[in-house]
Amino acid sequence: MSPPVFIFVGHSNSGKTTLIERLIPELARRGIRVATIKHAHHKVQLDTEGKDSWRYKNAGAALSMLVTTNALQLVADAIEEREPVQLARRFLGEADIVLAEGFSHVPGPKIEVLRRGLGKPPRCEIGDGLIAIATDCPEVYPELPHFTLDDLEALANFLLQYTVRT
Amino acid sequence: MSPPVFIFVGHSNSGKTTLIERLIPELARRGIRVATIKHAHHKVQLDTEGKDSWRYKNAGAALSMLVTTNALQLVADAIEEREPVQLARRFLGEADIVLAEGFSHVPGPKIEVLRRGLGKPPRCEIGDGLIAIATDCPEVYPELPHFTLDDLEALANFLLQYTVRT
Repeated sequence: MSPPVFIFVGHSNSGKTTLIERLIPELARRGIRVATIKHAHHKVQLDTEGKDSWRYKNAGAALSMLVTTNALQLVADAIEEREPVQLARRFLGEADIVLAEGFSHVPGPKIEVLRRGLGKPPRCEIGDGLIAIATDCPEVYPELPHFTLDDLEALANFLLQYTVRT
Repeated sequence: MSPPVFIFVGHSNSGKTTLIERLIPELARRGIRVATIKHAHHKVQLDTEGKDSWRYKNAGAALSMLVTTNALQLVADAIEEREPVQLARRFLGEADIVLAEGFSHVPGPKIEVLRRGLGKPPRCEIGDGLIAIATDCPEVYPELPHFTLDDLEALANFLLQYTVRT
């Protein structure tokens, strides 16, 4: 069983990360346990050089975990799961909802973040799985539920209702 | 199914991390997929401030994952599993062997790392699950298999044989 996964799509600098960052506390204050998945297309440093967990990974461990009294970190390169729902099923079972960013080409319910200032059309089409749009462009996809970029409360309610309905 | 877990115990500065760090390539060159679990008693920074995954965690996500083309990072504080075998079963299924460090009080097969220079007796007793000792003190626990601190090849062979036998 995977918790429900919502994919936030949009052009670079559309404000996806900021929107998700603001949506998390909006969900958390309702008692919802939120998990996030960020997809990075570029190379990212996944651990801090010199830490024991880094040393193990660097020595050739396929998976390196660090466990503290209240949290854990896992860095792994041997994982076959690649898509948000698979990843959520395997790793994020404690979550009530998963917010994913950067998986434009993956099936699943999507929210497009669109900012007029970028001067671009939407990145995704409705047929790609769009279920809502967070934007300052009211004329785009009028058939979809619209949220302003600041209306986190309404967006949080929409996602939770969507989860219950589907 | 959890991959087999070996717990490396010993006093601070006995050289546990260095031994594991040197054992990993010794196992990896045999085609063994190694996972590691480090237990830290102190507070550790688990992600890099400013990264999107850090921002999500900091905003209140219970679990935050970063996925790149060839690796993933998970930072989580909502995990109930706390012991190496549980953690290995849930997270480290790809591994052929798990080397854990810092779980002295947890059941499971243990290898003590003991260095004469520290001037201390062993940290664990045989009844605690010790199956071998890596040391420059040949007189300690003579009934256990002994390895010098440099004989990674023999120690790797011993662990793999132990895995097959049990």
